[in-house]
Amino acid sequence: MAFDAAVHTKAIQLDHMCLDMCAGAGSGHPTSALSLGQIVTVLLYHSMRWLPDHPRYPTSDRLVLSEGHAVPIIYAALADLGAAIGKGDELRRMTADDLLTLREADSLLDGHPSPMEGFPFFDAATGSLGHGLSVAAGLAVAARRDGLEKRIYCIIGDGEAREGQVAEAIDFIADHTLTNVLPIFNCNGYGQADKVSPQQSPETLTAKLEAAGFSVSDTDGHDPDAIRDAFDRFIKNQDGDRPMAVVARTVKGWGAPSLQGGGWHGKPPTGDLLAKAHEDLNATGVGLTSALVSDDLKIYPPAEHTPADVSTTEPMGLPEAMKQYDMEQALKSGKFATRKAYGLALRVLGHVNSDVYALDGDVKNSTFSEWFADDEDLADRFLECKIAEQNMFSVASGLSAAGKIPFCSTFGKFVIRGCDQIEMAINSGANIKIVGSHSGISLAADGPSQMSLPDLAWFRSWTTVRDHRGNPACYVLQPADAYAAYALTMRMAEHLGACYMRTVRPDVEFIYNEASVFDLGGLEVLTEGRDLLIVTAGYMVHECNKVLDTLDRAGIDATLVDLYCLPFDTERLLDLANENGGNILTVEDNYGGGLGSAVADAVTDSGDAFTIEQMFVRKIPKSARNEEDILKLCGLHHTNIARKAAGMLGVVAA
Amino acid sequence: MAFDAAVHTKAIQLDHMCLDMCAGAGSGHPTSALSLGQIVTVLLYHSMRWLPDHPRYPTSDRLVLSEGHAVPIIYAALADLGAAIGKGDELRRMTADDLLTLREADSLLDGHPSPMEGFPFFDAATGSLGHGLSVAAGLAVAARRDGLEKRIYCIIGDGEAREGQVAEAIDFIADHTLTNVLPIFNCNGYGQADKVSPQQSPETLTAKLEAAGFSVSDTDGHDPDAIRDAFDRFIKNQDGDRPMAVVARTVKGWGAPSLQGGGWHGKPPTGDLLAKAHEDLNATGVGLTSALVSDDLKIYPPAEHTPADVSTTEPMGLPEAMKQYDMEQALKSGKFATRKAYGLALRVLGHVNSDVYALDGDVKNSTFSEWFADDEDLADRFLECKIAEQNMFSVASGLSAAGKIPFCSTFGKFVIRGCDQIEMAINSGANIKIVGSHSGISLAADGPSQMSLPDLAWFRSWTTVRDHRGNPACYVLQPADAYAAYALTMRMAEHLGACYMRTVRPDVEFIYNEASVFDLGGLEVLTEGRDLLIVTAGYMVHECNKVLDTLDRAGIDATLVDLYCLPFDTERLLDLANENGGNILTVEDNYGGGLGSAVADAVTDSGDAFTIEQMFVRKIPKSARNEEDILKLCGLHHTNIARKAAGMLGVVAA
Repeated sequence: MAFDAAVHTKAIQLDHMCLDMCAGAGSGHPTSALSLGQIVTVLLYHSMRWLPDHPRYPTSDRLVLSEGHAVPIIYAALADLGAAIGKGDELRRMTADDLLTLREADSLLDGHPSPMEGFPFFDAATGSLGHGLSVAAGLAVAARRDGLEKRIYCIIGDGEAREGQVAEAIDFIADHTLTNVLPIFNCNGYGQADKVSPQQSPETLTAKLEAAGFSVSDTDGHDPDAIRDAFDRFIKNQDGDRPMAVVARTVKGWGAPSLQGGGWHGKPPTGDLLAKAHEDLNATGVGLTSALVSDDLKIYPPAEHTPADVSTTEPMGLPEAMKQYDMEQALKSGKFATRKAYGLALRVLGHVNSDVYALDGDVKNSTFSEWFADDEDLADRFLECKIAEQNMFSVASGLSAAGKIPFCSTFGKFVIRGCDQIEMAINSGANIKIVGSHSGISLAADGPSQMSLPDLAWFRSWTTVRDHRGNPACYVLQPADAYAAYALTMRMAEHLGACYMRTVRPDVEFIYNEASVFDLGGLEVLTEGRDLLIVTAGYMVHECNKVLDTLDRAGIDATLVDLYCLPFDTERLLDLANENGGNILTVEDNYGGGLGSAVADAVTDSGDAFTIEQMFVRKIPKSARNEEDILKLCGLHHTNIARKAAGMLGVVAA
Repeated sequence: MAFDAAVHTKAIQLDHMCLDMCAGAGSGHPTSALSLGQIVTVLLYHSMRWLPDHPRYPTSDRLVLSEGHAVPIIYAALADLGAAIGKGDELRRMTADDLLTLREADSLLDGHPSPMEGFPFFDAATGSLGHGLSVAAGLAVAARRDGLEKRIYCIIGDGEAREGQVAEAIDFIADHTLTNVLPIFNCNGYGQADKVSPQQSPETLTAKLEAAGFSVSDTDGHDPDAIRDAFDRFIKNQDGDRPMAVVARTVKGWGAPSLQGGGWHGKPPTGDLLAKAHEDLNATGVGLTSALVSDDLKIYPPAEHTPADVSTTEPMGLPEAMKQYDMEQALKSGKFATRKAYGLALRVLGHVNSDVYALDGDVKNSTFSEWFADDEDLADRFLECKIAEQNMFSVASGLSAAGKIPFCSTFGKFVIRGCDQIEMAINSGANIKIVGSHSGISLAADGPSQMSLPDLAWFRSWTTVRDHRGNPACYVLQPADAYAAYALTMRMAEHLGACYMRTVRPDVEFIYNEASVFDLGGLEVLTEGRDLLIVTAGYMVHECNKVLDTLDRAGIDATLVDLYCLPFDTERLLDLANENGGNILTVEDNYGGGLGSAVADAVTDSGDAFTIEQMFVRKIPKSARNEEDILKLCGLHHTNIARKAAGMLGVVAA
């Protein structure tokens, strides 16, 4: 019984701390925390092999707290253990006093788990529900490929399990037989507003997991021995290739009847209610009155880690790559789609950097990440996520936490299915690369259900924000040709942080060459004029190119800028605008709030008296059989652009 | 055998048409269509009760084609039946010639299902995968409450079933015992890039559905009698309260071996390959050589429809509502959170308009939609969707297609989990209302995992676009006080189209009264000055209010505008800017690309020499214990605003 009593005693000690820290903060989720007291104690004080002094130690087992609001129980344990906390490399031992700072503006203890705010024990920021199991799967994939004997535990709320992403993660774990990750469902029966649905009851969750091929331990989540036995079964891998899960029956507000049932989600008791909760906890009778030191609560260290050598060499250029991979005809043709240049760059990157991974959502033959997948030297770093984008982005966040460089590609239209997952990845400091193909309207025939149109505005918003490293929270890249797409894929891999690149479906002519230089934050002047500054990017660079002669015949000497990156060098762009009489025409084949607004923000910030005409997709588009038809339908055909440009200068285009 | 032969004959006839229309269009998904020939024939020519001449007839059974890319098979059937197609009320009979226009810019036959582009047979635009079953559930909820004996069929691809939203829809159907909707899983074994995962095999899908409480018919999807029997079991409701599903084993490219297996997704055969496919279809031997007319293929009409009377009366004002619902104390206090005003308005709306529905994601006690839920007269129009936002928005799209006015509310942070679902709802012409609470940073303590920060940029993008009715594709509303939130909730209900309203957590002082008027597209001048135009919205209106006196002491006479709606009256705003020396300061507590960029777009479009300073959240925030701390942390405290404003005019604020 020593283990049993020791766990209860420690759990109750941690529960008391949870109540006090939440009461002090005036908010938080003590009742959710109390439902996890025994589970977290068994994990952190017994089953997990880790080093409280070295929270990021590579071979340490990891815990992803998907239901991030229950974080007080983790804070309590790490304060009790004096674990190391802090930002970057400035770590120090955590103390009980830290708990009193919970949720303060300058505290390392954020309201929800946040590695970038000073809590390195965690690999990802959580709190928006449903992401954690996917992150854990990403960590598990990396550990397995690196040959690390590391186990990943993930705690998911029962109400949280309703998020479809959890089902996506379960399928992903089964597809990739990730027996080194253990989902633990905390079935306390209560969500925020009401009881959890019968569809997420312990019985139904068990049946669903078994239907998905999992071996499930239906366990009393407050019985230390039962919890240990369930974890041991996972640790000893008693189910072989069959992934395992724990369905833990728990009580929200365990040990404090006055806080149980509905109505106590996210509310800390204070005053007499707090005193009563403390009394009740002491009266549970299962724990001893003082924390007892027992070998049963010994924390075992992880295996010694010897860093694997990451091979990185200089990547070859586009022409050389096209020759090497039998694309000489395409090279000679002078046309190559940006999505293909991305696929080629990804394959080359895979060979020069063994940390590069490629993730797909069953469209690898459209995004051309298949060139990475079909290369037998790289196949083990290609992850097919099937048609489940949310899981794909969170898996990438987990891979990044393990030091990998994940490239996620699908149609730009489907990238926005993962907005929340991408946001949490950015908040986690993830080194995530996202590539959306078939962006804008140039795919034509399939229509708006496959076109990415408001995506640019959302990602542009991130270019206005600084991440925890002081960089733009995301770089948005829109290459106009294969040379640009190839080079910018390399730039993405070099940058530590989030990037989003938009590629297009059609083959487009080369407008650059090997000597062309592309930098994050840069722009390219393709033609220098003095009457009008045309600013565009991606596919529309080619459409704008077609109007220059027409404008020239109309006596208009235009400057054409390829604004391939957001954010960009504003000084440079404003100078160009000045040299062009302050007349700016922006052209993009997506909805508003993107490139044109970025230019408008820069101009108004400068206070210059420039006029900007924005051309973009102003009505919901439909199918058209080819690019010319869809461009005309949306008023973005080169003849529309020429007319608009001429009109700005009061002349009529020929 | 008459039925069997008749169905095969008709199916093969439709299959031939699919091959030809896709070959003509040069794109499309004939092989997916061929996997559905027999299923669609049994549905449209036998099991479904509908009127080809009246595709929107209220009591007609409905078909939601979730795997929208298979739409050629539906186009073929409706052309064969001469069903009515067209935009709005301008309907005409469809002919075989229409098929030849597939995917043309001026065709009524879009690449994927689109009711707004001229195909009223469909209730929702599909093509982005995973949405359809949720839409079908929404239609089913409306039919049941309206007492219509109507059945909803939904065809979902096996690869598509990987999308977590499908699991969310399955749980929703079970929670609400929607026995009037039938999910049909088309298990042809192939996705786009590869074979479907074993996790979506007929056996595993069946096991998962049964675990979720469904009764499943595992059926040969090319055996007419087996298909009919499965549908009859649903029609006769043989499983009582247990929802039913069909798992149909099909062949992608059925009848044309040369098109089967991988590599043919989305590719139409042409030339010899097309001829071969036609030959193979004729050689299947299961069909007769010419379409035979048989009573077995008789289409049965729906029940006569007598329109239910929708009660609508004039809603009472905010003070009256607060008195009626025992909130006199709050009324007297002069403070009331905008999220509470929304909850109250929603409850009042529910009483004056019987078409109003409220949907929640387990946060009704935070968004205050619980005031609608807890009103016994309204409870049957409240839909608890639990923690599954994607399903919630698509269910709302289905409700809208049935003529309802759905209000979906959750935290603004979680609204963006449904970006793709909201986009497809807008493309469907859905009359959807979305309310995101806890927007911006004012919720403070819970931190960024609960704050909506880039959401405004994404929704703002929609305000730059026209929907199919010629209106802004979405109105974005940011009420500053309870009167505004209450009135704008009423405006949302009156408008036919999408609206997004952002509410905030804290109680805020009343700044308006019953006489105040709020219009979609409007703005309010709170203070008239001549030196500086401060433009803001929502919570930040109160923070900006605090700086006016400080500025006045510094000799700055500022104008304060509450820009509560996007898009807005640009002329009016530009005039105000002119009256204030062209000095504009925008203030918002979210990331960039929102309100400030909207003003910048308007100014640069006018060509006026105005200077705009934008204040917004420029770094990823964290937790803080109260509003003052988080505002200081983000540089948006009223003292920061005063300093910035004074700086713009070259004076130092007191």
